[in-house]
Amino acid sequence: MKARDATAAFDQLRLLGAATIHEALGRIGAVDPAIKPLDPRTCLVGPAFTVDTAPADNLAVQQAVTLAQPGDVLVIDAKGYLDAGLWGDVLTHYAQRAGIAGIVVDGAVRDSTEIVQLGFPVFTRGICIKGTDKHNPGRINVPLMFAGTPVSPGDIILGDCDGIMVVPAAELDRAVALGERRAAKENHMREQITAGARLIDLLGLPDRRPAR
Amino acid sequence: MKARDATAAFDQLRLLGAATIHEALGRIGAVDPAIKPLDPRTCLVGPAFTVDTAPADNLAVQQAVTLAQPGDVLVIDAKGYLDAGLWGDVLTHYAQRAGIAGIVVDGAVRDSTEIVQLGFPVFTRGICIKGTDKHNPGRINVPLMFAGTPVSPGDIILGDCDGIMVVPAAELDRAVALGERRAAKENHMREQITAGARLIDLLGLPDRRPAR
Amino acid sequence: MKARDATAAFDQLRLLGAATIHEALGRIGAVDPAIKPLDPRTCLVGPAFTVDTAPADNLAVQQAVTLAQPGDVLVIDAKGYLDAGLWGDVLTHYAQRAGIAGIVVDGAVRDSTEIVQLGFPVFTRGICIKGTDKHNPGRINVPLMFAGTPVSPGDIILGDCDGIMVVPAAELDRAVALGERRAAKENHMREQITAGARLIDLLGLPDRRPAR
Amino acid sequence: MKARDATAAFDQLRLLGAATIHEALGRIGAVDPAIKPLDPRTCLVGPAFTVDTAPADNLAVQQAVTLAQPGDVLVIDAKGYLDAGLWGDVLTHYAQRAGIAGIVVDGAVRDSTEIVQLGFPVFTRGICIKGTDKHNPGRINVPLMFAGTPVSPGDIILGDCDGIMVVPAAELDRAVALGERRAAKENHMREQITAGARLIDLLGLPDRRPAR
Amino acid sequence: MKARDATAAFDQLRLLGAATIHEALGRIGAVDPAIKPLDPRTCLVGPAFTVDTAPADNLAVQQAVTLAQPGDVLVIDAKGYLDAGLWGDVLTHYAQRAGIAGIVVDGAVRDSTEIVQLGFPVFTRGICIKGTDKHNPGRINVPLMFAGTPVSPGDIILGDCDGIMVVPAAELDRAVALGERRAAKENHMREQITAGARLIDLLGLPDRRPAR
Amino acid sequence: MKARDATAAFDQLRLLGAATIHEALGRIGAVDPAIKPLDPRTCLVGPAFTVDTAPADNLAVQQAVTLAQPGDVLVIDAKGYLDAGLWGDVLTHYAQRAGIAGIVVDGAVRDSTEIVQLGFPVFTRGICIKGTDKHNPGRINVPLMFAGTPVSPGDIILGDCDGIMVVPAAELDRAVALGERRAAKENHMREQITAGARLIDLLGLPDRRPAR
Repeated sequence: MKARDATAAFDQLRLLGAATIHEALGRIGAVDPAIKPLDPRTCLVGPAFTVDTAPADNLAVQQAVTLAQPGDVLVIDAKGYLDAGLWGDVLTHYAQRAGIAGIVVDGAVRDSTEIVQLGFPVFTRGICIKGTDKHNPGRINVPLMFAGTPVSPGDIILGDCDGIMVVPAAELDRAVALGERRAAKENHMREQITAGARLIDLLGLPDRRPAR
Repeated sequence: MKARDATAAFDQLRLLGAATIHEALGRIGAVDPAIKPLDPRTCLVGPAFTVDTAPADNLAVQQAVTLAQPGDVLVIDAKGYLDAGLWGDVLTHYAQRAGIAGIVVDGAVRDSTEIVQLGFPVFTRGICIKGTDKHNPGRINVPLMFAGTPVSPGDIILGDCDGIMVVPAAELDRAVALGERRAAKENHMREQITAGARLIDLLGLPDRRPAR
Repeated sequence: MKARDATAAFDQLRLLGAATIHEALGRIGAVDPAIKPLDPRTCLVGPAFTVDTAPADNLAVQQAVTLAQPGDVLVIDAKGYLDAGLWGDVLTHYAQRAGIAGIVVDGAVRDSTEIVQLGFPVFTRGICIKGTDKHNPGRINVPLMFAGTPVSPGDIILGDCDGIMVVPAAELDRAVALGERRAAKENHMREQITAGARLIDLLGLPDRRPAR
Repeated sequence: MKARDATAAFDQLRLLGAATIHEALGRIGAVDPAIKPLDPRTCLVGPAFTVDTAPADNLAVQQAVTLAQPGDVLVIDAKGYLDAGLWGDVLTHYAQRAGIAGIVVDGAVRDSTEIVQLGFPVFTRGICIKGTDKHNPGRINVPLMFAGTPVSPGDIILGDCDGIMVVPAAELDRAVALGERRAAKENHMREQITAGARLIDLLGLPDRRPAR
Repeated sequence: MKARDATAAFDQLRLLGAATIHEALGRIGAVDPAIKPLDPRTCLVGPAFTVDTAPADNLAVQQAVTLAQPGDVLVIDAKGYLDAGLWGDVLTHYAQRAGIAGIVVDGAVRDSTEIVQLGFPVFTRGICIKGTDKHNPGRINVPLMFAGTPVSPGDIILGDCDGIMVVPAAELDRAVALGERRAAKENHMREQITAGARLIDLLGLPDRRPAR
Repeated sequence: MKARDATAAFDQLRLLGAATIHEALGRIGAVDPAIKPLDPRTCLVGPAFTVDTAPADNLAVQQAVTLAQPGDVLVIDAKGYLDAGLWGDVLTHYAQRAGIAGIVVDGAVRDSTEIVQLGFPVFTRGICIKGTDKHNPGRINVPLMFAGTPVSPGDIILGDCDGIMVVPAAELDRAVALGERRAAKENHMREQITAGARLIDLLGLPDRRPAR
């Protein structure tokens, strides 16, 4: 399955959710939970188009929006810097027109009200009024360490209210299959709980008396 | 009055709010304000069922949900660790069926969208995709230092949008009585303000001229 | 133009937004982005009435609400202290009756649910159940370093979802004029983008090939 | 044994060290490790004389040095506030003349070079040039929650390079006895290690093969 | 008195210390105490030569060392960024040869062992192995907000173990005079304390009984 | 060259220093600078023996010291947890006897005075009196993300006063060669500086006039 044509797989990921896929794949790919969606109802799935930029400089970001493909998720590593908003309403307008699926920023954005109103998915560490310079070329579409997790161009980004999960490109099919298996198992547990089962029995955990 | 039968008192606490009860009882019991409700509209009242667990381990939590009584609030001390979600949707499903009133976590949870949709009250320091191990027995229903405040099993947890307040079990009646007195006093102040009184006069504070 | 009569200018600032005015004035006046509105939909504009208070003491705040003029924004420097709520529902009731436009706090508040329900604009670094003492006179209506930015009495405070911006009193007309020019330029860019232009061309930035 | 006459016990605590006593007493009394000695070679033992003071106010501290007894350790809760130095060289001079054993501050001090030169034991969260006001009466010699740990007047403070440990007054004899037992056990382990024993065998832990 | 010829005044500042001068001038000029000397024995005095640089870029720093005058203190605002060392051993070698008195960095440096061995005064927020880029022109010798305190070119920087204090250029004579007066007063207090006086009496503070 | 026999190469790395090798290898391998040596004079070089352990559990550490080879550096990922000291004097005694070169901890240690006195190289994020449990098996000698940097068993750890650098095992020869080339270049620059050259000329950077 090629990632660019993987709409059905992406829809499945979206339904299964980031926490389920993270567990299903053996606890890999979780990004620092301090990177949160601007709008808590946001879901975001798509192949990563990476941008490695200096902390308060968005030249590489401006160039990347021209290069990214429809459906791509821009993964922008601004080194966790919170005192400059490297993305705003004009870039949002451009990105939406270019079909970019959303962005994930280890840094800050601005014009947050407009971004939420436009319905553009943005995961960010912060919000800041201040802008950036445009001097540093940065790097575009290279492998990154992003907020503690490796991300390569084409890896699948999956973000929801719990945070962001990176699915290695080669693992997409497996992620869906294992995620569905885990979701089925959890549904079965929910049914058994509804029928009166104890969770510790379902999980095979030992019984326990409280201290007093 | 026995805490387990204290529904009317709990309803009063809920109406009076955590800040009012904190002041009324002489400024005790306030938990670190970084522990916030997942849904800002959440209110939570009930006797504490305490869980002392290792930072990234939820074995004791899994056992505690089997032992807690309907109406209990699980107070889970995971030592402020933010990089593991120790509570998710299956535990929420189980806890709701068991009649648990809600949870307060010095740590992180996951499946936050589902938890909010299910309407289960959760106060937490963070949200994280990553899960926990199940190796450490921890301790169940023992006195805790919880986020800087002592909590004993059976103490009353009162949480709202401002944060969490711990009412010692023996102080429940007094908390309601003093809280009502304070609320009445504040209402009277509001009426006098509406009638034109100055707040500094009502509080007996000295007048003041600005610098320029 | 006198700031107290500047309603039309204030309405313009509100429409243009804090980030636009910050850029238009040459990147000045941005306050630490950790000071956020209680309700993300909040907008706030008005002349600053400053309060310099000790970290857990609100005597000067109680005095300031008596002295502030209708339309004023109280700018309360509590030194970033997060473990005491120096403003609550009674002060909110008083301030609304006095016509105070809103408050900006480098510190914490409480009774946050009531404040949001009353629709009173509050920007704050934190929320805390605990209250304050009333011993320290502090200083009223003096120039402040507020969360890293100088604020003098009468400077215009402009706050929205992105954060807070301080417009020096003497720059109000210029802020509106330059803000409108910048907004017009951004609107023009949006139209060109809609018509198919590339953002890097509009900004005069160099083209770029990705790494692979 | 009365704490004020407990010189021999104090000397034993000093030799055993804070970490050993913490473990020996069942893992109680450890203070937030961010409170460190100004001079890493500092050791400090003595009964607590507590001071509960507002974050940037040292009136209660000035009063406390007059009231404390020779050998006392001032335990000053300034709520973790780092932007005011509440203790400096004049207070150090006074405290040394009064025979005060040292101070432990959840806050900041100044004149740190002079304090180290004078050889006065100071454990502090921070160092700050700025001073304090003298308006807030605070409270003197009352039970405190100090940096997450309860401290009552007369409890024994034990501080060394690893941090601070609070020994409840009634546990002093037991602390020495259990600490000596633990130290003896550790010495025995060191001898066995020198003789070739494996640490996991001494501790009864399971063997283990590495992953590869 | 002209700052460049102010050697005697600088020596006096050095003797009086940053905390004393801060108080003597009416509590102005204290820089964020998180900016500390690499070597705690460091003292540093001299006129500020300011550098406003992007968070991970030292082009402006490289240019500044060529422009600064002997005796100048480079005040480098790198926006508190800790993940790039913008100054190392080669720059230290150059700066010492150019007679630069020392540097103050709101950011990080590297080669810290060599810098301390060379005896070059460096106050910094952090130490980091990583280097910087050289793309962003920054600004040289302009007024700055430096770690929360305004600094203009030519203001006097005074740093010691307690932290950094900024003396406005026009206040140098007054700083020395007021600092000496304050130091004399403190010496007199020390003598009176040695003679048996109580500190609260010397300060005119009220007496106090402990709680129990 | 095999890493275990690489003493000469290790000595070269030690002389060249972490910052030089980081730059020479193209800016890779720098660990979070918050992990610092207990004793600032510490240098440490050796192949990594990795330990992935739960935040407050040292079972895997106890097992690892039995398995590590002489010369190995234990790289212990305790997830940055600061509230438990997972390494103390007994482990230090054992490790020294086993010939372990030193440890690098993303977490905390205790008995810091004894460790420094014993001269055992320890790089750690914190110091804490509290101990750990021994329940969680963790993982031994597996690839890790360590404080934001990938580390595989056998990679070379190089730590000095500036922090820690990870040299991939296969790059050891190249690291020495490139490091020596960089050091030679820097020495040449120092000579030219001594002879009067300007640093910006040596680096080919543009000249600059200050703002005023």
